[in-house]
Amino acid sequence: MASATTAPIMGIRDEVVALKRERTIAVAAELFYERGYENTSLDAIAERMNVTKPFIYAHFTSKAELLAEICARGIASALAALNEVLATVKGTPAERLAEVGRRFVVAVLNNQHYIAIFSREEKNLTPEDFHRISEMRRTFDTKLVALLDEGVAAGEFHVRDTRMAALAIGGMVSWAYVWYRLDGRLTLEQISHELTWLILGMAGVPQPMPSKPSRPARRRAAANGP
Amino acid sequence: MASATTAPIMGIRDEVVALKRERTIAVAAELFYERGYENTSLDAIAERMNVTKPFIYAHFTSKAELLAEICARGIASALAALNEVLATVKGTPAERLAEVGRRFVVAVLNNQHYIAIFSREEKNLTPEDFHRISEMRRTFDTKLVALLDEGVAAGEFHVRDTRMAALAIGGMVSWAYVWYRLDGRLTLEQISHELTWLILGMAGVPQPMPSKPSRPARRRAAANGP
Repeated sequence: MASATTAPIMGIRDEVVALKRERTIAVAAELFYERGYENTSLDAIAERMNVTKPFIYAHFTSKAELLAEICARGIASALAALNEVLATVKGTPAERLAEVGRRFVVAVLNNQHYIAIFSREEKNLTPEDFHRISEMRRTFDTKLVALLDEGVAAGEFHVRDTRMAALAIGGMVSWAYVWYRLDGRLTLEQISHELTWLILGMAGVPQPMPSKPSRPARRRAAANGP
Repeated sequence: MASATTAPIMGIRDEVVALKRERTIAVAAELFYERGYENTSLDAIAERMNVTKPFIYAHFTSKAELLAEICARGIASALAALNEVLATVKGTPAERLAEVGRRFVVAVLNNQHYIAIFSREEKNLTPEDFHRISEMRRTFDTKLVALLDEGVAAGEFHVRDTRMAALAIGGMVSWAYVWYRLDGRLTLEQISHELTWLILGMAGVPQPMPSKPSRPARRRAAANGP
């Protein structure tokens, strides 16, 4: 089953392990989100999964490991999106920033509950896990600053403190976990598009002003967030 | 002691009550921040204040009331800042937005721990308190949207979806509670200034580009946030 490439094809056994881990993480996240980390036991997770506790212990050493996995998801996903754009998307800094914006928003909204759990439970992370997650955040910021610096050097961006601008972009997108509703005024894709438009505006990239987006009528009534 | 004006001068008795309430809230916030709400008893709060529990009960009916008071602080302070600018600052929409930005950032950074506690503990609020706080957020957003609409109508702002822009502004400023450090690269005033510059940029207000701010040399070593 071993492969000579650097990205080996997963064997069925590995796939099953990955599936069981994913399912365990998803159920743990449901319960942490509903009841809080401290009020959720491994027994409760096993019960909701209809398995025994040893099933969970075969894949995770502790409840703390599950929490770390969940708390890392949002930033890991955002960082993966950023890295992929930097590695694969050619074009001007503005084009690359636009693609970063779009994928960053999608990463945040797809991990909304995981990010909420991180915000609530970061105190319950081990110092090592907290440090590891903070390092990912720092890496994200550093790479975003570098992209902004590149755009300033190229004369495309009009930003005077790129570190502050990177924190502002990180904030306006990350905060979407607070107000995003699945049945809100705009779809996930529209939100991603609009926030990216605002990010480019903040970077001082002149932009056209097409008509305001609107969601298909049947879902238009609900409001997005607070 | 009664006054005929609508804003009566506080009698000494009221001042003492206000002082005791404030001190109790501050100590409760310290403990909620350090240990979490569920792990903090009223006894522990009384102990740290060097008072008895009846002292606290004279001013608050329950631990839940203390939590509600703490969780409301950030948004109440931001809303008060917004209301004050709208009521007292004359000028163009851009000038008013700049003043809103500056005071909003200060409100958030001055309530950093209170906002962190809200993010962590919102699940522990009663539905009534949660609703009241959500209403304040909604009011804030609605008023900010109105100001942005005014600027668009006046041809000063270049924003295509003012509701999304209001959420983006709210997010980039609110998220500062995550990365702000008292001993960071920039002072609170500099951060307020820079974020406001970015908000105006996002609203499409053309801005000059003076030199980047820098903190007095002795405090320059530390970084702002993640």
